Amino acid sequence: MRRMEETLHKEIMELAEQAKTAVVCSVNTDGCPNAKAMLNLRRDGLKTFWFSTNLSSKRVSQFRNNGKACIYFVNENNFQGLMLVGTMEVCVDRETRAMLWREGFEIYYPAGIDDGDYCVLKFEAKTGNYYHGLRNTTFDVEES
Amino acid sequence: MRRMEETLHKEIMELAEQAKTAVVCSVNTDGCPNAKAMLNLRRDGLKTFWFSTNLSSKRVSQFRNNGKACIYFVNENNFQGLMLVGTMEVCVDRETRAMLWREGFEIYYPAGIDDGDYCVLKFEAKTGNYYHGLRNTTFDVEES
Repeated sequence: MRRMEETLHKEIMELAEQAKTAVVCSVNTDGCPNAKAMLNLRRDGLKTFWFSTNLSSKRVSQFRNNGKACIYFVNENNFQGLMLVGTMEVCVDRETRAMLWREGFEIYYPAGIDDGDYCVLKFEAKTGNYYHGLRNTTFDVEES
Repeated sequence: MRRMEETLHKEIMELAEQAKTAVVCSVNTDGCPNAKAMLNLRRDGLKTFWFSTNLSSKRVSQFRNNGKACIYFVNENNFQGLMLVGTMEVCVDRETRAMLWREGFEIYYPAGIDDGDYCVLKFEAKTGNYYHGLRNTTFDVEES
């Protein structure tokens, strides 16, 4: 793993910025990978990403049992794909929930920020893999 | 799990049919989920899907070590997502490789069907989960 060249770094950041959704992957109690598209709401560089979900969901119980995670961004028209591998934390503190709250979330969480079924998934990336066309780059997120 | 109603079944089949790519998920030797978009080339209902890849790729070594897999189809404009969970087999027999070969694959496998680095991933689904809007349906693929 090595520090990326600037243009490649910019290309990766743009993919993560522009993606409407990320495919969020967990491992279930049978050891099978699971996946679900989630809205790409907020991030800090390539290191931290936040997603909203229902506290009662299968994904939450999977991540509480096993925090190993990856998130994946794809632009299938340009043959671009970005995988980030790391850990997922289930956050129920009010500060994090308020930070991620968006207008319209009432559809999913009728009682608002304090809805008992609203929580935030916080993903912290360790390593990444990016491909574009036939080029494939593996990198350490801390160093990127 | 129960037999799906006909309109729902049709909707799911259309998503799997029309998707240009599937996000293919594996579990690496550290127990972390990994993901990669692959061209949605051929399928048999919702039960079997075939993907082409390089025999030397990370994904192949992961699936040879651990066949547990899921594939995921998303239409982010319609809030539709389909996860199929099952097993992945790495096929190197000529019949399977010839069956999946497409014009243009020479870019990836210069020596053609018999290129030593060309192989086929065969996915067999056991269970599925489909969501559309706020509705979520889990089903047994054999019964669907």
